[in-house]
Formats: sequence, C-alpha cells, structure tokens
Amino acid sequence: MRTNLPAAEALRLILEAVAPLPPETAASADALGRVLAEPVVSGRTLPPADVSAMDGYAVRAADVAGAGAARPVELPVDFEVAAGDRDGRALAPGAAARIFTGAAVPPGADTVVRQEDTEAVGSHVRIRVAAPRGEHVRPAGEDVRAGERVLEAGSRLGPGALGLLASIGRSVVAVRQRPRVAILSGGDELVEPDGDPDGGRIVSSNSYSIAAQCREAGAEPLYLGIARDAPEDLEQRMRGGLASHVLVSSAGVSVGDRDYVRAVLEKLGCEIVFWGVRVKPGFPLVFARFGAGSRGPLVFGLPGNPVSAMVTFEEFVRPALRKLAGHRVWFRPRVEAVLGEPLRKAIGRLHLVRVRLERSGGSIVATPTGSQSSGVLRSMALAQGLLVFPAGADALPAGAAVSVQVLDDDFLAAADPGL
Amino acid sequence: MRTNLPAAEALRLILEAVAPLPPETAASADALGRVLAEPVVSGRTLPPADVSAMDGYAVRAADVAGAGAARPVELPVDFEVAAGDRDGRALAPGAAARIFTGAAVPPGADTVVRQEDTEAVGSHVRIRVAAPRGEHVRPAGEDVRAGERVLEAGSRLGPGALGLLASIGRSVVAVRQRPRVAILSGGDELVEPDGDPDGGRIVSSNSYSIAAQCREAGAEPLYLGIARDAPEDLEQRMRGGLASHVLVSSAGVSVGDRDYVRAVLEKLGCEIVFWGVRVKPGFPLVFARFGAGSRGPLVFGLPGNPVSAMVTFEEFVRPALRKLAGHRVWFRPRVEAVLGEPLRKAIGRLHLVRVRLERSGGSIVATPTGSQSSGVLRSMALAQGLLVFPAGADALPAGAAVSVQVLDDDFLAAADPGL
Repeated sequence: MRTNLPAAEALRLILEAVAPLPPETAASADALGRVLAEPVVSGRTLPPADVSAMDGYAVRAADVAGAGAARPVELPVDFEVAAGDRDGRALAPGAAARIFTGAAVPPGADTVVRQEDTEAVGSHVRIRVAAPRGEHVRPAGEDVRAGERVLEAGSRLGPGALGLLASIGRSVVAVRQRPRVAILSGGDELVEPDGDPDGGRIVSSNSYSIAAQCREAGAEPLYLGIARDAPEDLEQRMRGGLASHVLVSSAGVSVGDRDYVRAVLEKLGCEIVFWGVRVKPGFPLVFARFGAGSRGPLVFGLPGNPVSAMVTFEEFVRPALRKLAGHRVWFRPRVEAVLGEPLRKAIGRLHLVRVRLERSGGSIVATPTGSQSSGVLRSMALAQGLLVFPAGADALPAGAAVSVQVLDDDFLAAADPGL
Repeated sequence: MRTNLPAAEALRLILEAVAPLPPETAASADALGRVLAEPVVSGRTLPPADVSAMDGYAVRAADVAGAGAARPVELPVDFEVAAGDRDGRALAPGAAARIFTGAAVPPGADTVVRQEDTEAVGSHVRIRVAAPRGEHVRPAGEDVRAGERVLEAGSRLGPGALGLLASIGRSVVAVRQRPRVAILSGGDELVEPDGDPDGGRIVSSNSYSIAAQCREAGAEPLYLGIARDAPEDLEQRMRGGLASHVLVSSAGVSVGDRDYVRAVLEKLGCEIVFWGVRVKPGFPLVFARFGAGSRGPLVFGLPGNPVSAMVTFEEFVRPALRKLAGHRVWFRPRVEAVLGEPLRKAIGRLHLVRVRLERSGGSIVATPTGSQSSGVLRSMALAQGLLVFPAGADALPAGAAVSVQVLDDDFLAAADPGL
C-alpha cells in the first residue's frame, strides 16, 4: 500500500487498474450515449437504387440537351414514380416521367429536371433547362454500400449514428456495459433526508450528489444506504455491492478510532492500492482493488465531507467510470482563466478551488465561490469549475493565469449560434 | 406567412414564439439536469451546531495556550463526542473531550486540537500545540442559515445542487416541465426498421435520430409513427400529438404534389409563421403555431431528408426546446477553426457543412465529412461540428478562419486534467 501520493500519480494508478468493461447487446433505440464495442458493417446498400433528390421529371439528358428558357423542350409525361414505388417501369426515349424526392429513377432515364425549371402543359411537360447526366440523382450506394464498415468500435452513439443504425436495419448493437456503481454512506451521525436531523445529526447528502455524478458520467448508481459505525454493518452492506463494477464509499477513511473501512476492505479480500493523496479537499482518499482475475469491484473510499466527496469523485472516480464505459476521453474540458482574487495556501498539496466563471472581454475570470471549507456544499453547488492550484505553489495573485476544469457545460455554450 | 427567410431571422421568430414551460413539482432525486422554477430557501441551518472539522480533542483555547512540542499540556479526557451524539454534555475547565469529525463541539469547549498533534496517555491526552479559539471548528450556519436563499430560479440542478437539496431536507422542488415532443414521419416510401425495405423503400430513420436529439436536449420524445401520403392519415396522427408541447414532422414539406402537411396544419387551426429558410441543408423548413392563448403545440415541419432533418432540428428546434425547458443558454459551443479544404457554393443561402475537427498545434482544423448530399446520413453520424458557411460568401479557401458549432462534447474534453 502506498500513501501520501501526488494527485497525478494517484490518478495514474487508478487508470492503470481500469480496463473497458465487456460488451453487451443493447437495443439501438436505447443506446444513445453508449460506446460501440465492435465496428458496424452495413448489410444494406443506401440508397438501394438511383433515386431522385428533387421533385421534378426524370428524362434522358440527350433529350433535353438543347433546352433553354427561350427554347423549351416539350416531352410527353408517360407515367409517375413516387418514393417507394416498386414496379420498375422503363422510360421510353423522348418521354418524361413525373418523379418525386426519394423515388427510384426509372430504367432508361439518366437525369432529373427539377419542377421549378418546368411547366406542366396538359399531358406534357415543358422543360426550360438542359440537364447533364446524373443531375439531381443520388446514385445507389452513395450513403452506404452493403459490406461497408459504417461505424468504428469505440464510437460514441449519438443521434446521427442511431439514425444510421436504423437506416441499415440494425436494431441491436454490441456496446460496452455501463458501469454499475454501488454507493455507500457511513456514519452514526447520518440520516436520510426524510429522517430526523435533530441534535447534530446531518442528512446523508453524499449519496444523492454521488448518484447524480454517476448518472452524469453515464454510470448506473445503486444506493446501499447508510452503514452504521460498526464493522459488521459496514461489511454486510459492502458485500451487497460486490457484484457492481465500482464500490464508492463515503464512510470514514480518516485516522479516527471509528474508521473501519480499511479493516473491512482487507477482510473482504481487497488489496488497498493507496491511501492518502496530496490534494485538498480530499486527502483521505482510498483506492483498493480485488486481486487480478477476481471479479470484485474497484473500490473508492471517499472522504465523508460533502465537498471532499464530490471533488474526489470528480477527479478520481469519474475518469475511471469513463474509461470503464469505453470512452476515449475521460476528462472535463479545461479553460485558461484569470484569477479574480488572490489565493494562498501551504506548499505541498494541490488544491482544487471551486470557482465561478465569467467572460470578460476576451478572457475568462475565475472567482472562488465563497468559503472553501470542505463542509460547505453550497460552494460546490455554485461552482462552475475547479481551479487547479498546484502543489508546489503557495500564492496566486489576482490576475494570475490559471487552469480551470469546467464542470458546468452551460458555461461553454455560445450566446449566439453564428448564423 | 413569411417565406424565404434568412436563417437568423427564422431562428429569431421561433425563439420569440417560445416561453419557458410552467412549473411542475418533481422529486429532487429525479431532478438532475432540470431547471428550477422558483428559488429554494433553506428551512434548516447547516451545520446545525458548531461542529468539529477533524478527529481530535475539544478543549478551551485558554487551557492549551502555552502548549508546544517541548512543553506539552496534559489534560484529563472526561468524555467522548461522536458525530450525531445528542446529549449536549458540557466540558469542564481544564479538561478535554475526545471528538470526531462532524460531532458537535461540547458547551464550554471553544477549539479543537487535531489528533495528529496529541498523544493519548491512559485517561489523559498530551497536547503538543497551542490552538486559537475556533480552530478546526465549523461554526453553526457556515454552510446555510435557515431562511437563506440557497439556489436561484433558473438554476440547472447538477449533482452539487441535488446534494444541497438533500442536506436541507428538500425532497421535492418546483422545476420547469420538460418539453414533450411528438415526432411524426411521413411518406409512402417509409418503413420501420423491422419492415421490408425491398424495392426502393427506405427505413424511417428520422424518427430515431430526432428522438435521440430530443433526449440529448432534455426533452421527452413521443413517436407517432409513419403517416401515409394521405391527408386523412396525416391529420389523424397529428391530432395525436396536439397535447404535446412541440410537434416535429419530417413528412414532406416541399413543393411536391403529395405534400399535404401545410394543408393539414391549416385545417387543424394552425397558423404558419414561415415556410422556407435560406439555409442548406434545410430550405423547406416550416414553423407554425396555434393562436395566442391556444394550448396547441409549436409545430416544426422538417425536410424529409435525413441530414436536412437533423440539421434543421439542431439549428431551429433544439434552441426552442432549451428555452421551453427554462435554460438560460440555448446554443452549442462554438470554436474558431481553420478550414482543411476549400469550399464553394452559390451566394444566397447559408450552408451548414458537416465537419470533423482535429487539434493541430494550437489550432483546430475543420474538414468536411465526405459527401455533403443531404441524403448522406453517414456524414452526419461522423460529424463533430457544423461549419457556418455564410449566405453572402461563395468560396472559402483552405486555411480560411471559420466558425464551427460543436456537436461532439468529447471534442472539448481535455486530454489531461492538469493535476
């Protein structure tokens, strides 16, 4: 077991212990946001035939070669083809067929004149422009050919990919399993939100914030409840989470007499990889794993303080969940910002400072959200980002250039779409 | 009814017609991502009492004023206070109480010495440091005071806000309703993905991509199926969507003989605000609304082509859904990029070009994703952004500075968290 690690080293050890989860078969319609475990090869050609891209008239290019506004060509309209028509009737030389968007171009025709460039005259059509071969025709296979690989393993399935899967008739796909995360709170002082918080008891809010963090990271939370400060209760609840991919505890992991988490983990056969990270908030973080080849979950023992729990989840658990789910990128966006007020700390631990972000001129100003006490959950609720105050620094003056991890996606949204 | 509008004007008319939906009461635990309709005022003070921020010993600062490593002060340990203890026993002068993180500081004590700075000696504790008053004590109300406004109306509920709601015992909150979006496809050529796509029929993929776009925008899709090219069927299905907040059709809205959408909309009492936007893909966009004070939905008639449907949703429907849901920002992030290959078009319509994005040195290179035909869904599945090619321009050389709306959140993720 290692201890007192630099934050970057702790993160490296965690990510080294994580591999993408095995595939499962999911309904395409439910697979939004999932990561493909295998490439997708189309069994269909799209469009399946040469189809018209416009409403208009299918003709032979040779028959309208001399057409112009002053010299329109008039052709008899022999028949009509709508999208989905299957009869395959051929077009005779010197004739036109009425055609609609998406309809197969009839055999014999090789171009489409759009409706706007024509005039219907009884059973004939007057064509006012020449049309090169292939005009307004989408050739068979323009989108996809049967046998072609259309999506790569590792792709995140967004709306376009789901539409593509529907269009090639793929109703199920192989995707990486979603991480299942068992969440445990611990402490005799904790009550559920509907419990009695009288006399110094506090609501177990960590399970709610962590469950939401799991959902935002694309994982499925499972709440194991509040363990009392007794090894038997903790052990029994932890056993309930052993079939999950990840077990996140915010029970005590500090030096206190009542902290049983490490002892219970060891009893369950878990190897503690490290304890203690030189980061604030979050020093008492524990990371543990079951032996290689075992099917036990990765275990994160987060500090019990609400802000410490959220920040350590953000820095150390979320990247692991993203990697487990098969994502190729695991971290929040970062922006360079200007510090709005001076910050001081002791050299030695990296600080993650909750900040608000504001655009001002061409730059972004980062201002701490009030008290940085690790009990002050409101500072986290208002935070749009986490400012990285490096371990080796002891002061950042107002106006210093700082790096901020952006938690609030809305901050990155454009005020104007630029149309 | 207006027609042939510039894209920005069409968007302006849409957003002008949209107001945030009324509130509903939701369970806090299910409210992730929702927008608060009212401010939240705490009914509780947090922490409810002065509590210890560390494991250690509660003492009077005066009793340890002279302590140092060479001259430790030894005090009897009279009792122990754990988090959640309610007895309120007072500390006598000249004594210490064992205390744990989160426990109420006993009356009479005014500071906490952390365990690391002490040594237990039988029933006594040897204290090696002086401690100013209030050290390692979180004062009552440091986080929240009863009666204080802790979250503002219009806030998006993220994990920190949900933890805060739990901590103050708010199990339900007033949030804006989520937009319900009825989705209709139309066309005799369409089949469901499990249908027979033989002979030129194509799968109705739009309903799948649009449903996913709705979910990503935080709206609830409702799929009304495929309307046949007959006014009666279209009208009947549209009536099924009238109780939704938004009706999105990707049935025909072009100039073709078989396009009944506008006629049916008018029959249902809907006022067509505009038809036709100078944008490609997506010219035939229709936007309609029921009369002021009516409870009918906003109606978007999207082009039937898969890419046109997705792009018009992105540009015109998504901002409306975000505004309906109460969000303060409605648009995608934008980045400035360098064009990877030259682009040409006619002057007059704004083009939205599907591009891949790649970081190269300090800049971002935007490269079109192959064919920009509006039938080629694969170009949309692979697109990470939409490049805005302005209406008034006809050429953009390779290397030109361009503005790109970012569709792929992963592109903005950092490769490294900066720890």
